[in-house]
Amino acid sequence: MKPKKIVTIGGGTGSFTLLSGLKKYDVDISAIVSMADDGGSTGILRDELGVLPPGDVRQCLVALSDSSEMLRRLMSYRFEEGGLAGHNFGNLFLSALEKINKNFSKGVQEASRILNVKGNVIPVTDQDTNLFMELKNGKKLKGENEINHNFEIEKIGINKNYLFPRAKANRQAIEKILEADLIVIGPGNHYCSIIPNLLVDGIASAIKKSKAIVVYNCNLVNKSGHTEKFDLDAYVAAINEYIGKDRIDLVTFNVQKPTSHLVKKYASQGEALVPFDEEKMTNRTYRILRANVLSGQKIKYSLADRLALKRTFIRHDSDKLAKLLIMTLELGEYEHIIKEII
Amino acid sequence: MKPKKIVTIGGGTGSFTLLSGLKKYDVDISAIVSMADDGGSTGILRDELGVLPPGDVRQCLVALSDSSEMLRRLMSYRFEEGGLAGHNFGNLFLSALEKINKNFSKGVQEASRILNVKGNVIPVTDQDTNLFMELKNGKKLKGENEINHNFEIEKIGINKNYLFPRAKANRQAIEKILEADLIVIGPGNHYCSIIPNLLVDGIASAIKKSKAIVVYNCNLVNKSGHTEKFDLDAYVAAINEYIGKDRIDLVTFNVQKPTSHLVKKYASQGEALVPFDEEKMTNRTYRILRANVLSGQKIKYSLADRLALKRTFIRHDSDKLAKLLIMTLELGEYEHIIKEII
Repeated sequence: MKPKKIVTIGGGTGSFTLLSGLKKYDVDISAIVSMADDGGSTGILRDELGVLPPGDVRQCLVALSDSSEMLRRLMSYRFEEGGLAGHNFGNLFLSALEKINKNFSKGVQEASRILNVKGNVIPVTDQDTNLFMELKNGKKLKGENEINHNFEIEKIGINKNYLFPRAKANRQAIEKILEADLIVIGPGNHYCSIIPNLLVDGIASAIKKSKAIVVYNCNLVNKSGHTEKFDLDAYVAAINEYIGKDRIDLVTFNVQKPTSHLVKKYASQGEALVPFDEEKMTNRTYRILRANVLSGQKIKYSLADRLALKRTFIRHDSDKLAKLLIMTLELGEYEHIIKEII
Repeated sequence: MKPKKIVTIGGGTGSFTLLSGLKKYDVDISAIVSMADDGGSTGILRDELGVLPPGDVRQCLVALSDSSEMLRRLMSYRFEEGGLAGHNFGNLFLSALEKINKNFSKGVQEASRILNVKGNVIPVTDQDTNLFMELKNGKKLKGENEINHNFEIEKIGINKNYLFPRAKANRQAIEKILEADLIVIGPGNHYCSIIPNLLVDGIASAIKKSKAIVVYNCNLVNKSGHTEKFDLDAYVAAINEYIGKDRIDLVTFNVQKPTSHLVKKYASQGEALVPFDEEKMTNRTYRILRANVLSGQKIKYSLADRLALKRTFIRHDSDKLAKLLIMTLELGEYEHIIKEII
């Protein structure tokens, strides 16, 4: 039997977590990755070398890599001194390969070979584009970095999110979506990692057309100033709106409470656990898989994983999340899964 | 039968050429590499990151690598824009591995694994040291880069060459020299690649003690302002002096004339072919293998090779040089070899 085809859509740390778990199964993985990043090392490389943003792609490559621990650590190494300070080695690696191959996607393919990547890492577009957010007061935020660090977005309200110049989806991304058995959206930063994929021409219509089960991995916490007022249903509604159809079939939702210490720490930064009111709606077009998908304190990560994950503490557990998705794919018996995993 | 053990001593492009040829044979190669470089990308990394000089080691790793053409090209890729301009990717690769492993030699070992290197690349020392040259007028030149670009050295005369602080040889380098069947010195920049190896504490005495055949690959052209007045015998005498014994058994010497166009071009920059006067001495302590070891115009190099070799035009041919050395090692019938190859 051919391995089932899973497409993930996201970027950054969320995809890293998800893919690290999924790669342990005999499935055919294609990771579609947001290309809107313009901060940090990635932003400097875009500006100075005119390359496409390598950061999100790098994290997905490392997650799916079957190469040595040392090579994976190297890809996450960040220089600390001199003119190189802040640059991530893996980003330089991808930028050099883009330059040599004169094409970002070809560079990613070569990187996949060198890193012995299981599956495909596919930049959502090969075109150089920027993420924009127009607020209700007329202000335009340019780029993921500026959007990510603005904390008045929700208060002011959003007129629209868009890419400029418009960007066409990678053909391979479209193909993989159309032939997928399972499409997994998220987890990830809502406006900076998830939505930018759906803004690329061709992605939403392919998801609409695809016969795959579409799962959305709901974030664990709301982002301050961005999605503070969101609940599970609001996230789903927002994503379905960008797809242009109530396409999400299933939502995974964490039911395991983090420690109260951690919850307080997040709350002090305006970030609360995503709420879910079971009674609120009766006409949901999606089913909800409530399960423990929270990373516990005792889970050991390799150094490379820790480097990539160190920014978040309330986070998904790679293995629990992957197990839930694989069972969804294999069994299709949702109630059974929920009982077993909760 | 166990493969014969060959130790090469040098640095930079000379070692690259030599090793690229030798790796095609079933021999056990250990490349001992000069650690005196302080120019260009290497110099910036030494200054800013406090790492040891990666440039020469990188060239040897690429020469002995059995990895994909793409990975070898990547290791020779040089960034052209922005804050990274001038940095060689392979140098960044080695510096990051040194930082992660907190030791240059360990970093080189990890690099060897990643690049699937055939044999051992051994930095002559793991200590951070600088090459100095004291001239007869009292002036001190500091570092390979300054020495390399000073063209009055021969005119003024040299008092002494030394390393400061003093540096102890890598234990592995000593071991490999002591158990070698063949030690090959050069080709390479006389004061900047060859001599700096012999200045490291322990190297000269190991060469003296070793039972290996010692071959010196005489350079093809003299360097302007450095060795303009040298002939073959002067090079041998200088190296034997640093070893502290007439230890060189054999010298390979090219007899194939480059095109007169190329000879003129070099002459206009004060660089003439190394002269050799057969009649000059009757008491040579070494035999001379005169052969055609010149690279022809029609030899095809891969792109990675061309990148590393593009600085020289009158240069050794990897395959011819390797063939001569392997025959020396296998047959020990020098006259026969000379007749066959001239």
